[in-house]
Amino acid sequence: MPLSDSDRTEIEAARAETTPTRRATVPTLEAMLFSAIPVLDHGFVRVVDYMGDDAAVVQAARVSYGRGTRKVSEDEGLIRYLMRHRHSTPFEMCEIKLHVKLPIFVARQWIRHRTANVNEYSARYSVMDREFYIPSPANLAAQSASNRQGRGDLLEGDEASEVLAMLRADAERNYNHYERMLNEGGADPSRRGLARELARMNLTLNTYTQWYWKTDLHNLFHFLSLRADPHAQYEIRAYAEAILDIARAWVPASCRAFEDYRMGAATFSATMLAALRRMLAGEPVDQAQSGLSKREWAEMMAALTPPTPG
Amino acid sequence: MPLSDSDRTEIEAARAETTPTRRATVPTLEAMLFSAIPVLDHGFVRVVDYMGDDAAVVQAARVSYGRGTRKVSEDEGLIRYLMRHRHSTPFEMCEIKLHVKLPIFVARQWIRHRTANVNEYSARYSVMDREFYIPSPANLAAQSASNRQGRGDLLEGDEASEVLAMLRADAERNYNHYERMLNEGGADPSRRGLARELARMNLTLNTYTQWYWKTDLHNLFHFLSLRADPHAQYEIRAYAEAILDIARAWVPASCRAFEDYRMGAATFSATMLAALRRMLAGEPVDQAQSGLSKREWAEMMAALTPPTPG
Amino acid sequence: MPLSDSDRTEIEAARAETTPTRRATVPTLEAMLFSAIPVLDHGFVRVVDYMGDDAAVVQAARVSYGRGTRKVSEDEGLIRYLMRHRHSTPFEMCEIKLHVKLPIFVARQWIRHRTANVNEYSARYSVMDREFYIPSPANLAAQSASNRQGRGDLLEGDEASEVLAMLRADAERNYNHYERMLNEGGADPSRRGLARELARMNLTLNTYTQWYWKTDLHNLFHFLSLRADPHAQYEIRAYAEAILDIARAWVPASCRAFEDYRMGAATFSATMLAALRRMLAGEPVDQAQSGLSKREWAEMMAALTPPTPG
Amino acid sequence: MPLSDSDRTEIEAARAETTPTRRATVPTLEAMLFSAIPVLDHGFVRVVDYMGDDAAVVQAARVSYGRGTRKVSEDEGLIRYLMRHRHSTPFEMCEIKLHVKLPIFVARQWIRHRTANVNEYSARYSVMDREFYIPSPANLAAQSASNRQGRGDLLEGDEASEVLAMLRADAERNYNHYERMLNEGGADPSRRGLARELARMNLTLNTYTQWYWKTDLHNLFHFLSLRADPHAQYEIRAYAEAILDIARAWVPASCRAFEDYRMGAATFSATMLAALRRMLAGEPVDQAQSGLSKREWAEMMAALTPPTPG
Repeated sequence: MPLSDSDRTEIEAARAETTPTRRATVPTLEAMLFSAIPVLDHGFVRVVDYMGDDAAVVQAARVSYGRGTRKVSEDEGLIRYLMRHRHSTPFEMCEIKLHVKLPIFVARQWIRHRTANVNEYSARYSVMDREFYIPSPANLAAQSASNRQGRGDLLEGDEASEVLAMLRADAERNYNHYERMLNEGGADPSRRGLARELARMNLTLNTYTQWYWKTDLHNLFHFLSLRADPHAQYEIRAYAEAILDIARAWVPASCRAFEDYRMGAATFSATMLAALRRMLAGEPVDQAQSGLSKREWAEMMAALTPPTPG
Repeated sequence: MPLSDSDRTEIEAARAETTPTRRATVPTLEAMLFSAIPVLDHGFVRVVDYMGDDAAVVQAARVSYGRGTRKVSEDEGLIRYLMRHRHSTPFEMCEIKLHVKLPIFVARQWIRHRTANVNEYSARYSVMDREFYIPSPANLAAQSASNRQGRGDLLEGDEASEVLAMLRADAERNYNHYERMLNEGGADPSRRGLARELARMNLTLNTYTQWYWKTDLHNLFHFLSLRADPHAQYEIRAYAEAILDIARAWVPASCRAFEDYRMGAATFSATMLAALRRMLAGEPVDQAQSGLSKREWAEMMAALTPPTPG
Repeated sequence: MPLSDSDRTEIEAARAETTPTRRATVPTLEAMLFSAIPVLDHGFVRVVDYMGDDAAVVQAARVSYGRGTRKVSEDEGLIRYLMRHRHSTPFEMCEIKLHVKLPIFVARQWIRHRTANVNEYSARYSVMDREFYIPSPANLAAQSASNRQGRGDLLEGDEASEVLAMLRADAERNYNHYERMLNEGGADPSRRGLARELARMNLTLNTYTQWYWKTDLHNLFHFLSLRADPHAQYEIRAYAEAILDIARAWVPASCRAFEDYRMGAATFSATMLAALRRMLAGEPVDQAQSGLSKREWAEMMAALTPPTPG
Repeated sequence: MPLSDSDRTEIEAARAETTPTRRATVPTLEAMLFSAIPVLDHGFVRVVDYMGDDAAVVQAARVSYGRGTRKVSEDEGLIRYLMRHRHSTPFEMCEIKLHVKLPIFVARQWIRHRTANVNEYSARYSVMDREFYIPSPANLAAQSASNRQGRGDLLEGDEASEVLAMLRADAERNYNHYERMLNEGGADPSRRGLARELARMNLTLNTYTQWYWKTDLHNLFHFLSLRADPHAQYEIRAYAEAILDIARAWVPASCRAFEDYRMGAATFSATMLAALRRMLAGEPVDQAQSGLSKREWAEMMAALTPPTPG
């Protein structure tokens, strides 16, 4: 359970209040504002604030005095044009701020996206919560045999049970020792308590942390294109998918263009294009003659195969 | 006059509408929203959107679930602490978007602040307005004799008149030729019209351009600390001062901390501190013994002299 | 002629000296070091310094203790893999520093690439050179009728002559007035001379400026993908093409991967991929049934047409 | 012991080779190149590459054709001027690349410096080393009673022994379980082995990781001003101090300016300056009348007290 009762009370208090604004406002996103969308076993994503909407992209592209919008179809056409031709600056004119609770090893991947603003809960200053990510059995994957940084089939039976037991016991024990080292409130008066900034090093990488994370729509799309991708590690993908749903509520036209031109798109290299042209001309082409490596050939064929539903 | 009637109509239409929001809202800034604050002879700054307020700084610093604020005095104390110790990330949690009309030579200084989002009016795509910055006589300064990149006294008499006449005539003539080269709308049917992306090169650097500019509060303060400073060129300082007024309306507590700890502050080097300690101990210290260069000594003395009112 | 005799002497003196280093060194780039590659009528690009080589990309990807390289074919395979899968951080481990002389309107496009370090010649501090870009007749293009931000056919005859004459005369006159306003060295003792920071505003946008520009290889490739592209304005493309030649000399394997997977590649949207699959299955597909707009259909067809040689 | 024999052999091979270069070269830094400077119990910092020297700062500030340097005293004066007036762009023209081995909890602080390039050893792709940071008894500090994010006195006696024993045992046990979950090489043929990207979550935050880290001199100084500061956590400060020594060898004049104007400097707020002026005029001033909070008064007094030697 990610939130305490007092957290919920604070959130509900913030949700209850509305004030009038002259700014661009998105009712579907307002409806979600502040609520926590659960992710993994103890994590969440909450929208805390946002700036702009689809019309703000159009307004900036046109450097206009008012909203800058015209007919809906014309605006969507412009948004699609901007996305297709990688004119990224108008998308930078929208901004979103999220509150996220996530395991530390996920935070370490996420933070590599540098064009964002971050305020993380400080384990130098405060005591971490006793919450750890333990994969569900449906996500307890073996190492892939073919892909050094991928997952294969699921672990089963005794191996699965033992792994889960170790993950649980080690996280718990290390947290118990963390608490004992801290000696918060002087529980044991014979001890001084280790500095928080040192004690935290005993925690495991599946301990949950939390942060405020703020970025613009262009960089959000870049994040999603890498992290909502099937090659991303499942745990960060779970967050990316929650955020993709948020983006759909916030900027539906921009998001449609993103899903068509980026998420669902494929890039073919010069050599791939040459092979494709021969195929379209009816020539038989195989990997050996194509000039492509086996891996590239497989990647191209995958892109040319209809996605399986679901 | 920076705005056409149709621009004004668009602005007023945008101002007239309000919608309810759950987001942090700042009534004093709402009152200014969209209106153009005049700067220089044809320029302006307009607030188009904003995210966050003083409480958002506090909320992010505390990584809290609700607004995160406590007593007003406690919140202001935290903001002052963050500013004094250069904890910049909580200030990055506020964002502002401005529409600015400014001469190109000012835009060229401004754009050096890289941590910002910009959409500029495109002279490849559109025709530039016939508007040029001509300094008022009160700003027509001679080259400083002592400071290679500064201004000295004002030009006067014939020299001033001649300079103003040259600036005006050259900008006008070059714009006339720009229009003739463009031949927009095929005014002269015997000409094809030069490409816009080429014709613009005939314009002078005091031609006005405009852009949408968006940045976070930390980077806004950095911009102001450099551009609202007396060493900044007067023309960009005029914009910075208008923006400082906006910041005061938007985030008054953060702005007070900024003005106390950054704008009005002085930094003393290790060598200056050594001299200062001797002075406070009652020792007579002069430049020669201080270990400081003449220039540094003068800078230290200036910081220790009360600012003259006004 | 972009360089004075004393500039040439300085450059040759710098070229004459070599010292031993343990750092990664690229002989083909060393041979070009410091020499000015002419661009446009008075501009140039000079490599002033560089860090890393193809092996440095491999070394960083492997986080290795030594050079980290293995067999040449394995290293090139890794580089191609990194480029194909947009693993950009290893390419950020190479850095290059250029000295560029370029017209101001080109500098204004260039500076939008924010992830770079720039030191520009200061017109507040120094006097600008009397050098302007005047397009050659072969680049004096009319406005495109079909593309609002593109070029059409060349101007010819009287129109061309008049345009060139206006560009030349206006730049010259404005520069003469700039000099008169400055009154450098007190040529006219009855005048004080206008501040340099003001006088510069009388210059035209085709006046040459110069800067030191430093960026990493990932961002250099991003710059080249946008600016060496046929849609870029000819004048900045001329610089991008000179820099592409430099990149080929510096990091040949990375550059081959870039040209195959980025410059020569095409991205197909989800809708385009669906159409493509039907075409490969032998179905007749036309624009109307494809779900693509006319513009998108034309873009897809262009990507599927063999590039014409030259 | 941070390096294996084969690591040392690779390093020595790289050190043995030199090639001639026309680039700026710094012999004192060349002498250190590639060697590992030990930090903490198993960490290190190694310089892998660098670009530029003190003269490159001067060259960029002058946008010059050759080295751009004049008399040594004039160059150092310019460097000091640039540092004092926060003209940061010339310092961005120097770049350094380091290979660092560091505990994960230190890496998490370090990565907040966003303007840098990073390639970290991947625990999705590879197996982490069995190396953990265990504080020496001289660094096993209690939580500070007065400063929520600081350290107080050292732990002693039984408490110290127990803490060290827990840190050691927990890190070892969790690593043993990590290895058992991985089942690398199929050691136990009845198990499939958990995916590396999952198994890593069982490791503790004092596990060592390593990365290539590259930044420019301006951002390096910013890093040092925050992380070589007495308020920084000891563990990251140990790295910052090693890097400060590297900077002194690399760019001695820039580093002297940095240590005088930034590291050893103090900033006084507007209110502090007003108090200071009264003190210099001989007025008695105490905290109550100064307008400063107790904390600010203490900070000002600390800056006005001579630093104790050592």
